[in-house]
Amino acid sequence: MKLASLNNGRDGALVVVSDDLNRMLSAADIAHTLQEALDNWDEVCPQLEKLAENLNANEEAGEPFDQASCASPLPRSYQWADGSAYVNHVELVRKARNAEMPSSFWTDPLMYQGGSDSFLAPRDPIVMPQDDGWGIDFEAEVAVITGDVPMGVSAEEALSYIKLIMIVNDVSLRGLIPGELAKGFGFFQSKPSSAFSPVCVSPDCLGDAWKEGVLHLPLVSTYNGAVFGRPNAGIDMTFNFGQLIAHAAKSRPLCSGTIIGSGTVSNKLNDGPGKPISEGGVGYSCIAEIRMIETIETGTPKTSFMKFGDQVSIEMFDQDGQSIFGKIDQKVVQQS
Amino acid sequence: MKLASLNNGRDGALVVVSDDLNRMLSAADIAHTLQEALDNWDEVCPQLEKLAENLNANEEAGEPFDQASCASPLPRSYQWADGSAYVNHVELVRKARNAEMPSSFWTDPLMYQGGSDSFLAPRDPIVMPQDDGWGIDFEAEVAVITGDVPMGVSAEEALSYIKLIMIVNDVSLRGLIPGELAKGFGFFQSKPSSAFSPVCVSPDCLGDAWKEGVLHLPLVSTYNGAVFGRPNAGIDMTFNFGQLIAHAAKSRPLCSGTIIGSGTVSNKLNDGPGKPISEGGVGYSCIAEIRMIETIETGTPKTSFMKFGDQVSIEMFDQDGQSIFGKIDQKVVQQS
Repeated sequence: MKLASLNNGRDGALVVVSDDLNRMLSAADIAHTLQEALDNWDEVCPQLEKLAENLNANEEAGEPFDQASCASPLPRSYQWADGSAYVNHVELVRKARNAEMPSSFWTDPLMYQGGSDSFLAPRDPIVMPQDDGWGIDFEAEVAVITGDVPMGVSAEEALSYIKLIMIVNDVSLRGLIPGELAKGFGFFQSKPSSAFSPVCVSPDCLGDAWKEGVLHLPLVSTYNGAVFGRPNAGIDMTFNFGQLIAHAAKSRPLCSGTIIGSGTVSNKLNDGPGKPISEGGVGYSCIAEIRMIETIETGTPKTSFMKFGDQVSIEMFDQDGQSIFGKIDQKVVQQS
Repeated sequence: MKLASLNNGRDGALVVVSDDLNRMLSAADIAHTLQEALDNWDEVCPQLEKLAENLNANEEAGEPFDQASCASPLPRSYQWADGSAYVNHVELVRKARNAEMPSSFWTDPLMYQGGSDSFLAPRDPIVMPQDDGWGIDFEAEVAVITGDVPMGVSAEEALSYIKLIMIVNDVSLRGLIPGELAKGFGFFQSKPSSAFSPVCVSPDCLGDAWKEGVLHLPLVSTYNGAVFGRPNAGIDMTFNFGQLIAHAAKSRPLCSGTIIGSGTVSNKLNDGPGKPISEGGVGYSCIAEIRMIETIETGTPKTSFMKFGDQVSIEMFDQDGQSIFGKIDQKVVQQS
């Protein structure tokens, strides 16, 4: 089952989307918004599945589906908690500034509480007051939406609370990160609004590619028209989504509609630190990583962060080349 | 105008409460939930004010209001961002571990992104799997609820976006904080669900006590039946709520229903670090501070953190002794 929220009102209008992303049916008779559906999931999910079945079997023709008319599946949510499950990403960031990574990072997930009140639509511009010095960057990630998760859930049990899966551009302001992290309270201004894919899907949609809380497919980032990264989200994910959810729920329950992110997808390849596309590698899911590779290799970064007019798209394809979640496609634009 | 959400459904049932907190009227004909009201504030606010006027003038009798039947005013919200505006609190924490506080902390607010998906009701127990080692503590604070705030708002303009004011117990797990802060991503597991006061009020309700984004009244914390702190929220607040909102909105807009916290209210008195109630001072708004005072004075803390069965209440009174927001009253209880 594939679901989307049309860009209509603060919380969107829920639609069921055909597996090929060509057609849709309104789900308003079942639930007006995705949050409403998640709040009553046990009752609502079978009805949405039936609608999806009818649509995919052409028993209902539906209407044309336009990804550009979508908000993020949850245009705003009650929680966005982002992990750093691809430890290669973390190692790279540290290596570039000659900082050692604590060995505990391999056993204890890093996670930050993100802002969840104002997500961007998947085709919205990234509007910023300045590009100079703020270090505007994209981060391509996988994310899951949970039901109500009890406090203290085990990593294994946590897998059953994953209701939907999507991809995300976790926009980051690299220029603001060192100052914020030095203050000790984590990210705030350095993590502006994120954008999620037009469509989120139930785990069964992913077939064999979804195994034990890990999505085994390449995540493709295209930057100003050229492929920038296609690391496989199933490789080097040190913590699966069950472990990330259990980490988040250690001292409090999680409400339905909680979004948990994987962190920037990053492959080590032959023991790290990966290779750029131009050198035959799978590339990277953010500009910061290629800058680190450049720094490690030559002493200084060459690739600059995003400037006004730069454009990034993020997409994932199944084994038949079909886009699974639709395309995130965003341009950096100056605030007027 | 005073508003509350009865503990009914995930988002509560909005009621208007009389100024003396004795009576209430359902607001269901205007807005079912406080979030719904905030999403349409310009239209809804005058209608709610009219209802409050009728209730306070006894033109409508209403029903008895029971604080124990309340959820937090927003039982879940899209954003909870907590500042540290009382820098005495920060200085004390640092002093106890011989760490110097950067001078920038006097000009650049500290703020963390809190979990907002599962707030406790004001009389809910604080349910924890363990008390040993987790360092369960309360933090008494003031908080505001905003309307839609544009990105890049100035501190001065930000004041006009404050719609409602309340108080909060920002429950903290001191035993988990050092490990989390060392990881560099801020608080997560160390900040479990917070509880807000039964009632939130519009700024005009506070009369002269509300001046330029600062609430000038003592915030009273009572611990196991004895007054523990009554620092004045109007003293030593280095950053007013306008500055805190502007900080939060530097790189993204804030959605209606955003909650911004003041951080633990703490008075320096004669250049710091304040004095316990037992020594004639105004005391403290969390156990961590008294432990720091003990550590500074004797080398080791004497007061232990909260154990199962310990109880804290937090309340604020106007100049006539009338409770403004009702009482937060919570006991620590072991998870069954």
